Amino acid sequence: MAPRIEARTLKGFSDELPERAIVRERCIEVAKRVFRDFGFAPIETPALEYSEVLLGKLDPDSEVQRQIYRFRDHGDRDVALRFDLTVPFARFAAQHRQAIGMPFRRYHIGPVWRGENPQAGRRREFLQCDIDIIGTASAAADGEVLALVCHLMGALDVDRYELRVNDRRLLLSKFAEAGVTAGLEPVLRVVDKLEKQGPVAVADELERIGLSSDATRAVLDVCAIRGQAVELLQTLGTEAEHLREVVDMAVAAGADPSKLVLDLSIARGLDYYTGTVFETFLTDLPAIGSICSGGRYDDLAALYAQEPLPGVGASLGLTRLIDAWEQLGLLAEAPSTPAPVLVLQFADSAEESARVARRLRDAGIATEVYPDAKKLAHQLRYAERKGHRAVILYGPDEQARGVVKVRDMRARSELTVDQSELADHLMELLRQNRTAVGLTPRSTRGHP
Amino acid sequence: MAPRIEARTLKGFSDELPERAIVRERCIEVAKRVFRDFGFAPIETPALEYSEVLLGKLDPDSEVQRQIYRFRDHGDRDVALRFDLTVPFARFAAQHRQAIGMPFRRYHIGPVWRGENPQAGRRREFLQCDIDIIGTASAAADGEVLALVCHLMGALDVDRYELRVNDRRLLLSKFAEAGVTAGLEPVLRVVDKLEKQGPVAVADELERIGLSSDATRAVLDVCAIRGQAVELLQTLGTEAEHLREVVDMAVAAGADPSKLVLDLSIARGLDYYTGTVFETFLTDLPAIGSICSGGRYDDLAALYAQEPLPGVGASLGLTRLIDAWEQLGLLAEAPSTPAPVLVLQFADSAEESARVARRLRDAGIATEVYPDAKKLAHQLRYAERKGHRAVILYGPDEQARGVVKVRDMRARSELTVDQSELADHLMELLRQNRTAVGLTPRSTRGHP
Repeated sequence: MAPRIEARTLKGFSDELPERAIVRERCIEVAKRVFRDFGFAPIETPALEYSEVLLGKLDPDSEVQRQIYRFRDHGDRDVALRFDLTVPFARFAAQHRQAIGMPFRRYHIGPVWRGENPQAGRRREFLQCDIDIIGTASAAADGEVLALVCHLMGALDVDRYELRVNDRRLLLSKFAEAGVTAGLEPVLRVVDKLEKQGPVAVADELERIGLSSDATRAVLDVCAIRGQAVELLQTLGTEAEHLREVVDMAVAAGADPSKLVLDLSIARGLDYYTGTVFETFLTDLPAIGSICSGGRYDDLAALYAQEPLPGVGASLGLTRLIDAWEQLGLLAEAPSTPAPVLVLQFADSAEESARVARRLRDAGIATEVYPDAKKLAHQLRYAERKGHRAVILYGPDEQARGVVKVRDMRARSELTVDQSELADHLMELLRQNRTAVGLTPRSTRGHP
Repeated sequence: MAPRIEARTLKGFSDELPERAIVRERCIEVAKRVFRDFGFAPIETPALEYSEVLLGKLDPDSEVQRQIYRFRDHGDRDVALRFDLTVPFARFAAQHRQAIGMPFRRYHIGPVWRGENPQAGRRREFLQCDIDIIGTASAAADGEVLALVCHLMGALDVDRYELRVNDRRLLLSKFAEAGVTAGLEPVLRVVDKLEKQGPVAVADELERIGLSSDATRAVLDVCAIRGQAVELLQTLGTEAEHLREVVDMAVAAGADPSKLVLDLSIARGLDYYTGTVFETFLTDLPAIGSICSGGRYDDLAALYAQEPLPGVGASLGLTRLIDAWEQLGLLAEAPSTPAPVLVLQFADSAEESARVARRLRDAGIATEVYPDAKKLAHQLRYAERKGHRAVILYGPDEQARGVVKVRDMRARSELTVDQSELADHLMELLRQNRTAVGLTPRSTRGHP
């Protein structure tokens, strides 16, 4: 016999066990439903690409460059695992421009890989969830993306959040008004740290990169402008015209005006953005950072194509959102099975158990059958541990009487019902089966 | 300006454009719904693992060994991309045995990578879609997996198929009866090619590996045993006891008896299987091969754990199924948008268009808005190309009259309806929006 191999995963990589995988899948499905409601279509790109294609845009000294998984394949090609979904989408848009046509709206949900330092709690494999509308400079597109973010939060049962919006052009014009005009890109990158590091640290850094103390104060004053977006934008001049139009479009498309906050400190560190920028914060846990961010850019695929491709996009931080729910204690009772019902097994009754389960599935109730006729106490412990909401006992006694015993695992009570009433009874019981967040089952199938 | 980089993908890798990605996502969602209905829970494992973990089980000369993507990471670890989902699941089960408990049923859908020769039309990145019940030797589990396959085919709108079942033990006992007893594993591997290569080629190969012509004839006679499973199994003796029990359980759990075919030529090449084995063929395109296969094994994780983990599993060949639909011409009219409705854009009416779209989405109808007020002919060509079912015209005239014009893109007709009747009218129109396969929209959201 061969010696056994240690069962382990790589540093920074991990398995998802059912408890968390169920929550993640539900969120992904909710997100996809919202994306499709707005007409976004799915696409897929390969995990592995030519290094040249993926790295072309990167500064050779950049952190991402050092983090990328890059190697030579069987054909001695220089290849790499994608580190985000934006670069592959730029390549995709340039390559398939004729086939897909413009404007084009897509969503893409998939893993990306970065060899980050896992000490910092960072994962080396994580999920990205992006949408973009390209091939249009229209404010209607920006407004739709903002409205989509509000719909998405609602569909994920996130009620307490702020969607903070800004416009790079508005910010730059405010800086110019305040006399700060030179070298604005580095200023934006520093300002972007306001939420995390606070004004004192940011002021220090602004002076370190060469701003006078007057200019630093002016920048911080501009960044302190903040309030309900629709109202505050009315008080501003022509420099806010673009963002006003975007916010009006967002409200027309269904964004909740009470969630839209104009926040001039939202700069988005990336050079990439040129117009509207936004971030989404949970009211109950703002410190975890933005859970949905994005903005408008002038040209997605400059590296691969001549004709410019303007667009607007958003990225949902699914892992971060689930981490937030975990920290807020909202996942404490998450089951590790998608089936709310377990049918127990009795000796010589396997076919009867299978038939009960079949009838429940036909009625739309996801149902598991315990496969072996082990002791009832053993089977009940299994149900307890998995988080089944109800357990069905259909042993020789019940079969003889034409009834079924239902155990409510939460109330720890049992009720005997007529076979014909079983499905209705369970439906009623499961209707109380609300979970805390993002996850209100739309059906007894356990997933929305 | 930096020189442009050629936008291209690696050989054997390809993008999925919306048309096909929409079909693929629908199928995945249907499959997940069925898996959950039977109590299977999702898990995830990393794309990248220690080579030792992934390769431990492989013959160093095997084809897969040569095909694997293997390299040294930043920490000089010997790592590889997973080439299937079975080996990672074996590692997962050994590693998390205490946390997950037994029995354990999981599904896992994800990409795997093999550097196969792309000349043969093989892809180097493809999707696997696996379910398993482990920690039980019960025939009830085998029966549930067969019933699940029938449910899955039904949910995918595949009505014309055969689920061919066999039992390795039954086959071996039939061979023994016919006097073929030595070196049966190679015989099974040859027999497995019957469907593809036919009896003449198989007979040649059997004689080449050392069978007498009598033994070869006996093997082929055994493999020709085939018929409706429930009936045919009644005519067999105790050697068919196991499979009889499994098939009875399958029928009790909801398998369609008319689809269950006992076929003694089903051997499944893998050494891995020890009991029930099965394959699923499309009546209209059997030559494409099995689209859902699996079976029972004695020990999943022998390489990583001491205590044996018996189980039974199935794997859905999603890419093959979609290829089959494509060959059967069933995807000819597949749209490249998930939204059946497009709202056109008129000059200075952007907010009105957004409001119409919002009302339709609130009514559960996925709706796209064209972002720019381009010429109507241009916008209509866009809708034609994308495959929108209906187009909404809500220009200044319509706004003044409180009506909306709806263009039926299939009938090429227009109808003016009252604003208040728009959603109902569209619902009616979309109800006729059946697609050919696997994909009957359960809602106007365009996805099931």
